[in-house]
Amino acid sequence: MKPAAKIPGLDVVALLLSAHLLASAAEPARPKGPTMAAVLAASKPGDWRGLDPENTLYVELASGRVVIELAPAFAPRHVANVKALAREHYWDGLAIVRVQDNYVVQWADPDAEKPESARKIQHAQRTLPAEFERPLDPKLPFTRLPDGDIYAGEAGFSGGFPVARDKRTGKMWLLHCYGMVGAGRDNSPDSGGGTEMYVVIGHAPRHLDRNVTLLGRVVQGMELLSALPRGTGPMGFYEKPEQRVAIRAIHVAADVPESERNSLEIMRTDKPAFQELIESRRNRREEWYQVQANRIEIGNVPIPVRQKSVEPR
Amino acid sequence: MKPAAKIPGLDVVALLLSAHLLASAAEPARPKGPTMAAVLAASKPGDWRGLDPENTLYVELASGRVVIELAPAFAPRHVANVKALAREHYWDGLAIVRVQDNYVVQWADPDAEKPESARKIQHAQRTLPAEFERPLDPKLPFTRLPDGDIYAGEAGFSGGFPVARDKRTGKMWLLHCYGMVGAGRDNSPDSGGGTEMYVVIGHAPRHLDRNVTLLGRVVQGMELLSALPRGTGPMGFYEKPEQRVAIRAIHVAADVPESERNSLEIMRTDKPAFQELIESRRNRREEWYQVQANRIEIGNVPIPVRQKSVEPR
Repeated sequence: MKPAAKIPGLDVVALLLSAHLLASAAEPARPKGPTMAAVLAASKPGDWRGLDPENTLYVELASGRVVIELAPAFAPRHVANVKALAREHYWDGLAIVRVQDNYVVQWADPDAEKPESARKIQHAQRTLPAEFERPLDPKLPFTRLPDGDIYAGEAGFSGGFPVARDKRTGKMWLLHCYGMVGAGRDNSPDSGGGTEMYVVIGHAPRHLDRNVTLLGRVVQGMELLSALPRGTGPMGFYEKPEQRVAIRAIHVAADVPESERNSLEIMRTDKPAFQELIESRRNRREEWYQVQANRIEIGNVPIPVRQKSVEPR
Repeated sequence: MKPAAKIPGLDVVALLLSAHLLASAAEPARPKGPTMAAVLAASKPGDWRGLDPENTLYVELASGRVVIELAPAFAPRHVANVKALAREHYWDGLAIVRVQDNYVVQWADPDAEKPESARKIQHAQRTLPAEFERPLDPKLPFTRLPDGDIYAGEAGFSGGFPVARDKRTGKMWLLHCYGMVGAGRDNSPDSGGGTEMYVVIGHAPRHLDRNVTLLGRVVQGMELLSALPRGTGPMGFYEKPEQRVAIRAIHVAADVPESERNSLEIMRTDKPAFQELIESRRNRREEWYQVQANRIEIGNVPIPVRQKSVEPR
């Protein structure tokens, strides 16, 4: 009665560490298709991609680094502004000020309300027009999920991001799934700009879709955010300044020496391997499962991340 | 530019603290219906219920108490066994051994594999037949969600729990939403029994539905579980014994002196007030929202909890 077997894992990290071992032990008991382990083990180099360092943010905390992939195809102005803010060191020494259970982690200038001590902006913008959705471009890759979506006409993945499309309105937009990063705003739709950002740490709060500009997704280091102590003030704000979690800096990866960058690869969401992965999660072939769902909701599709393999010389 | 306004909160706790204040400030700007704050403020005593101390578990940690409402209507044998285990002090001094990000927290006997040091069971059962689903009883209250469900024919709430029903198979079952509590098992469906339990701390892993016995839901103290450090071993197991989080005891609330019990009330899920609450979450009337979803997925429906008000003498 191994504890490890009691309920199966999300598997992604463990599988990536040992996918080649597991593949050789692929069980014959579930004949309908490969497990996720087998899909990963059979994947080819072209099923993966690196991160563009110009569109990758590093949030540097005392506990480690959170890696965010930015989404310029969906929020070009916010992405450009967030990079400009990083490059003028806007966040250096600011802090995570809010952690609300099953909802969001948020960082900001704790003194934003105090004109004399609020962090100044040099070249970037404080606010921007909303980028809640963008025109539907049929040329953008889109891997549609087969089982529908409660909130949108269709949901799927585009360029590594969870996306909905509406052919009637001709729009597409990013979705508030776990790990997605957005730009907080006040009541005016155009009052955000990226000075305050939040990350989803709970069940996908899809009612926020098209209400706030999403601009990226955490691809590594989620646990540095999701395991933070919850704030005890209204909406999860930390009540005492000493409870806040300092942000040492937020860097654009391209500005960090190459030797200090994270060498990550993301599974491409526009290749057959990713569709096989989706199918391996719709119908779980691991021996533990008694019932195969034959369905999947977008929040339950993982996007695998791995360390870039070092090329043999 | 108040940080507090940057993105709105889940609100439940904050609203319960100040619902009477907020109600008087109910905004006229969104005329289509009341906000959740207004629904709560307008609720009547009969819209709420206490917890049955015979079907409530207290998980006592150094950091505080996690309160679990048990679901005897869905897992009667597991509930009875878990209570028997609590009453023979099975868990006293055992530990949380696994915290997997966006998935589960799990407690168990870390020495379960070692015959000489494994915790002995005196009167309870080590394993039980699976209780993955139960016969659909149309007499059980069921508040159906209007917008469907990706995984099941219909989803809604029964007795305070998220539930699916399938009229074709004549079955109903509990759903793996945030905070739901299950009994881990090995590969055999009848290998669980409650000695190891897990709690969902991420996006609802609905592929587990009908694959494992759910037996309750955390109604208070989720943050004592969800903010724990993630385990770094495969599937989120803690790699070193000293990382484990000790369980002082698990008690049936009825066995705790009344003065030491939590005085909680849960909003009834079978009253019109709860349907109004669902509608207030399908279409958010708070001023911040630009787009009303007009849809809701079961994982985004909160079940409000409040401190029982003290009767004036």
